[in-house]
Amino acid sequence: MVSIMDFTMPKKFVQMLVFNLTLTEIVLGGNVLIWPTDGSHWLNIKIIIEELIQRNHSVTALASSTTLFINSNPDPPVNFEVIPVSYNKSNIDSLIEHMIMLWTDHRPTPLTIWAFYKELGKFLDALFQINIQICDGVLNNPKLMARLQKGGFDVLIADPATVCGDLIALKLGIPFIYTLKFSPASTVERHCGKIPAPVSYVPAALSELTDQMTFGERIKNIISYCLQDYIFQSYWGEWNSYYSKILGKPTTLCETMGKAEIWLIRTFWDFEFPRPYLPNFEFVGGLHCKPAKPLPKEMEEFIQSSGKDGVVVFSLGSMVKNLTEEKANLIASALAQIPQKVLWRYKGKKPATLGNNTQLYDWIPQNDLLGHPKTKAFITHGGTNGIYEAIYHGVPMVGVPMFADQPDNIAHMKAKGAAVEVNINTMTSVDLLSALRTVINEPSYKENAMRLSRIHHDQPVKPLDRAVFWIEFVMRHKGAKHLRPAAHNLTWFQYHSLDVIGFLLVCVTMAIFLVIQCCFIFFQKFGKIGKKEKRE
Amino acid sequence: MVSIMDFTMPKKFVQMLVFNLTLTEIVLGGNVLIWPTDGSHWLNIKIIIEELIQRNHSVTALASSTTLFINSNPDPPVNFEVIPVSYNKSNIDSLIEHMIMLWTDHRPTPLTIWAFYKELGKFLDALFQINIQICDGVLNNPKLMARLQKGGFDVLIADPATVCGDLIALKLGIPFIYTLKFSPASTVERHCGKIPAPVSYVPAALSELTDQMTFGERIKNIISYCLQDYIFQSYWGEWNSYYSKILGKPTTLCETMGKAEIWLIRTFWDFEFPRPYLPNFEFVGGLHCKPAKPLPKEMEEFIQSSGKDGVVVFSLGSMVKNLTEEKANLIASALAQIPQKVLWRYKGKKPATLGNNTQLYDWIPQNDLLGHPKTKAFITHGGTNGIYEAIYHGVPMVGVPMFADQPDNIAHMKAKGAAVEVNINTMTSVDLLSALRTVINEPSYKENAMRLSRIHHDQPVKPLDRAVFWIEFVMRHKGAKHLRPAAHNLTWFQYHSLDVIGFLLVCVTMAIFLVIQCCFIFFQKFGKIGKKEKRE
Repeated sequence: MVSIMDFTMPKKFVQMLVFNLTLTEIVLGGNVLIWPTDGSHWLNIKIIIEELIQRNHSVTALASSTTLFINSNPDPPVNFEVIPVSYNKSNIDSLIEHMIMLWTDHRPTPLTIWAFYKELGKFLDALFQINIQICDGVLNNPKLMARLQKGGFDVLIADPATVCGDLIALKLGIPFIYTLKFSPASTVERHCGKIPAPVSYVPAALSELTDQMTFGERIKNIISYCLQDYIFQSYWGEWNSYYSKILGKPTTLCETMGKAEIWLIRTFWDFEFPRPYLPNFEFVGGLHCKPAKPLPKEMEEFIQSSGKDGVVVFSLGSMVKNLTEEKANLIASALAQIPQKVLWRYKGKKPATLGNNTQLYDWIPQNDLLGHPKTKAFITHGGTNGIYEAIYHGVPMVGVPMFADQPDNIAHMKAKGAAVEVNINTMTSVDLLSALRTVINEPSYKENAMRLSRIHHDQPVKPLDRAVFWIEFVMRHKGAKHLRPAAHNLTWFQYHSLDVIGFLLVCVTMAIFLVIQCCFIFFQKFGKIGKKEKRE
Repeated sequence: MVSIMDFTMPKKFVQMLVFNLTLTEIVLGGNVLIWPTDGSHWLNIKIIIEELIQRNHSVTALASSTTLFINSNPDPPVNFEVIPVSYNKSNIDSLIEHMIMLWTDHRPTPLTIWAFYKELGKFLDALFQINIQICDGVLNNPKLMARLQKGGFDVLIADPATVCGDLIALKLGIPFIYTLKFSPASTVERHCGKIPAPVSYVPAALSELTDQMTFGERIKNIISYCLQDYIFQSYWGEWNSYYSKILGKPTTLCETMGKAEIWLIRTFWDFEFPRPYLPNFEFVGGLHCKPAKPLPKEMEEFIQSSGKDGVVVFSLGSMVKNLTEEKANLIASALAQIPQKVLWRYKGKKPATLGNNTQLYDWIPQNDLLGHPKTKAFITHGGTNGIYEAIYHGVPMVGVPMFADQPDNIAHMKAKGAAVEVNINTMTSVDLLSALRTVINEPSYKENAMRLSRIHHDQPVKPLDRAVFWIEFVMRHKGAKHLRPAAHNLTWFQYHSLDVIGFLLVCVTMAIFLVIQCCFIFFQKFGKIGKKEKRE
């Protein structure tokens, strides 16, 4: 794959070619402020930061003093502004545990949908308590705010999974851009970003539904939308007060979020089902994907020893460290029965049933492994980053989803014919073995994975280049107002034309009433004359 | 402006760089069939054809034996297949006259909206009579169909303003792509392409409304949608029978149109108001725009003689040849009063009031003139092609719209602050003069025109390259099914979730009924016991 950035022309000239710009239109040395979100979200934003620095922009990232992933010595260098917070790592760990419990306890029976949403509400409350400390750590910190004011930033990039980035941009008087994968039932994108989502074929995020729904599934979908909307509206109540206080005028979280110039959505049509969107939405899924680099020698030798059978790559992502001994043994015994060699990222105790064909690693170069020609399948928890690497390299998947959007992501890959799902809670060795044999031996899975890969690669501009293009666009033009739909200026009843429909209904009713009244008067008069004539 | 195509790298390599393709993914020598529409629409499709030929594709165009613009000796060469038809040029001329009359007689008073739509219905009927001959000329022509079958085409490109292209693609078993600017009230895009259009902020095409509407305008907008939908549905009736007959199964025109792989819409967000769309819609407005070439010597000298005042370019497009003597005199006397020199494309009799500053031309190199640094304003009928050339070069406009989408186009440019409108029917010399002075002397018009120009130029990939990218994508992948929304598989009541809402309403009603019934039984029983106790 030849990338435009691999080419050895001067960078500025390449930029001119790709973006059709004159020299004066190229932003040189922009100043970017990052409002990131921790965990796997950081991995995505890091890629954007690296590219921005590569393109000669200066990048400053805000990060809380208690952070999981946001390291203070990244390569290339980022200026960090530390936000002092009083919560500690154990608070975050318990929040993550709560989130995992929320899904693993309440999946997959639809009967528990109410309990699930109740727990989701609680989770959002806990998140609020942590998030508000981060906001206060900046907004009620005059020294830090003064430094940011003096920073001369051109744009702020925020992941709305952590609230307040937009508020800081408004306080600094600079435009802001969102980067996100989704919000539950697209509540943020729909209510604040104004994208329409016909519930008949756009499945609610987290619902595990596809765009092809039965009547029953469409009922489930509409209920999912209503419940998730309800939970968000409740959650937003507290934020609305906070936002109004900070901005000194009555406002809402959603109204403020709606001021985002561009929404960089971290999916694409290889993953997402086709759905309506607006011109200020850009789908940049897989922006972190890269061609595979050579593997460490020992790993390469292990892979080569698999011969024609090839290898299986297995990772449950960066958030899940280990499994129960029983579960680990169950998995290991299934893996021992396939002819492929297996590379398993696992930090827990070595399972007793581990076969000779399986090697455990604390960490694996996942993208390089998935891009290896001998890789036959990928056992994944279904995180978006991993799924995108599998799509990029055309590798079929066995999904073992656990929490957040993972079950939904695997539902997407299943619908596109590139994955088989096994339930982590109820699975047996036979289930996992059967799933693995299916994706490896049935050619349709590889073919579909390759089809998605071809779709992913065949874009006019690469996702990362598009993401950076829009960031630079906002810097060049101080926003992207020409892409902002007028829907933002309407109240909800105006947006749905309820006032117009109401007025027209009143007009029609009045017209009908008048016609009936006229007929009544006419017949009354005609009747009287008739009676009079009869009497005469 | 540096274009990627101006660069002297080998074409294939440039394609690899721009579209991030491996060598095997590049379509070499595809075979494209064109189903064009005559008049100014042909000018747009011609640009795409030229680019396709430049990229080594073979292009065959179908054209009726009675054609206005589609010349049989284009440069570069196109293979033509002539469709024999019995109507003659006078039939087309009378249709165009009918269309002009329709607008000029019924604009701009809102009171004539009903008469306008009645006449529009008649116009569509006349169009049907001509269009059906073109369809029959291919579909009932076994020799021609056999030649097309043998042609081995990879894709058909159609402008749906002339119906039947989709039908021919289906008969040949090849994918097809639409290229269009609009359909009245976006009826085709909405009903057949499934794009949502919230009536509260998406103005109906031809309504001359913008995305910022008062309550009254929103009423007008909803009525425009309803009327245009009604007219289209009536018009489609005849086509539905024709399509069902040809395909040998009950179908509709709209269902068949909905099978388009990609919809290339000839507008962009420099012209259009931001509105929802779907991933298989690509906005390629201004794909024909090019940097200005040097002018003929005599013309350049005339322009240079204008000194600091500069020049005004004036054209009413390719369809309107001349004006009444009175109108021409009125215009000429207004032009005579400005300090600028004027280049007027006009084939009629030289007006008596023509000033020394004005020169008449049978034809002008419009794009080269608009791109000239001395050009201060453009007097235009508001055709999309001309408006896009003005946007491309950042020239403010005086709109003198006459028919079709011209009034609507000028309404867009007015809303974006780059044009002033004068009414061709009611204008006086003073009106035209005042409009010209406004756009030339008030800096906001030039600034807004330049802002639109910057937006137009600042795209990741040029419109023409994006159009060709999607045509080649469809050839490479035999379609673009991954972009097709599942809405196409739903009936209208399923799409609007009316079955689900109805079911949920019945459930709620039954639940309320059951609760009331239980309460009734409970109170009845409780009441009886009470009475019994009282009696005892």
